[in-house]
Amino acid sequence: MTVPAVQQLSHALTIETHAPGFTDITGQIAAWLDDEGAGEGLLNVFIAHTSASLTIQENADPDVLRDLTDALERIAPRGHPYRHNTEGSDDMPAHIKSMVTATALSIPVRQGRMALGVWQGVYLVEHRDAPHRREITLTFLGSLRRE
Amino acid sequence: MTVPAVQQLSHALTIETHAPGFTDITGQIAAWLDDEGAGEGLLNVFIAHTSASLTIQENADPDVLRDLTDALERIAPRGHPYRHNTEGSDDMPAHIKSMVTATALSIPVRQGRMALGVWQGVYLVEHRDAPHRREITLTFLGSLRRE
Amino acid sequence: MTVPAVQQLSHALTIETHAPGFTDITGQIAAWLDDEGAGEGLLNVFIAHTSASLTIQENADPDVLRDLTDALERIAPRGHPYRHNTEGSDDMPAHIKSMVTATALSIPVRQGRMALGVWQGVYLVEHRDAPHRREITLTFLGSLRRE
Repeated sequence: MTVPAVQQLSHALTIETHAPGFTDITGQIAAWLDDEGAGEGLLNVFIAHTSASLTIQENADPDVLRDLTDALERIAPRGHPYRHNTEGSDDMPAHIKSMVTATALSIPVRQGRMALGVWQGVYLVEHRDAPHRREITLTFLGSLRRE
Repeated sequence: MTVPAVQQLSHALTIETHAPGFTDITGQIAAWLDDEGAGEGLLNVFIAHTSASLTIQENADPDVLRDLTDALERIAPRGHPYRHNTEGSDDMPAHIKSMVTATALSIPVRQGRMALGVWQGVYLVEHRDAPHRREITLTFLGSLRRE
Repeated sequence: MTVPAVQQLSHALTIETHAPGFTDITGQIAAWLDDEGAGEGLLNVFIAHTSASLTIQENADPDVLRDLTDALERIAPRGHPYRHNTEGSDDMPAHIKSMVTATALSIPVRQGRMALGVWQGVYLVEHRDAPHRREITLTFLGSLRRE
């Protein structure tokens, strides 16, 4: 299938987090794509932080998200004698957790909707204990419905 | 180098898996790019699942892929008392393995071919024990040879 | 915001590494975007290797990068009895470290500059002990300032 014109759209999304864990941002992204009249193309989701990150994960059972949070704790335990320890015991583990998950995701868009599997949601993963404002950039490259 | 027109192509790929491990999908992707007349651009590979994932890895020694499968088992052991345990002992580890590998890959395309290193292959990584049909979406943004 | 024309630019970057650890390539990428007159769009950074990889990480305290190097060692220890062991004790761990970090990064570009957070840098992560020449491909899709 060839779609002739590739244009682009961009948007900034701010998410408030309150504790370590997963925030589902699928709906906000979907609403933006719909509002802007995205058609066929590719969406990039980018988080401008190194102690919070992104992942696409199971959206059905909240226990999966809790188990994923625990799994990240095991990969990056707080008790380890890190060199970088001036910003709190949750800071260096947060960078490690960010490194093994994703800072950027690129998701296909079909007929204006992310081509996610039925069980997939797009999540911001907060790795710090304190509340944070997290900045996410959305970039769509593709055709538009309203042209 | 500036290439004038950016167009797009998309395709759905279905891969049957039979057990945990790596399936090389490089050839199928390369054949599609060639058939469609892709030129210069960017290819996105996206898997619509959270218990199988994608990676670009060494394509020479099959032992590397076995060692990688084992490494994922160590990162996400089955024996752990996960909260989410109703879908089998391989299910929650599969989500963790998916989180630490990739759901989406973006690969440069040059003269119609993925600009992979000589030792790089594109792999679907199955994390579940039972056979599965896995859906992958390919999106190419770039110039076409046939225009 | 709609930006009309999407064009593309590409570039090859060669980085010499000397030991395991992080090399900041943010400046070289930024200089290329600036030289080429990139405007609004998306930048893909791709490394053509499976024993070195990419990540976006904290650019302020060098201790963070040392702790990240150690964290990768814990995820992929050298002492493990890997099947693939003919290329040195650092080789199979290098593939595992590559798998849990990134081979490709897609970064939004705004007004010709990567839309990174203030604490974010783009790093090549070398996982091998010996010096290596690492090949990175840059692909920009978007509008150009000089048209």
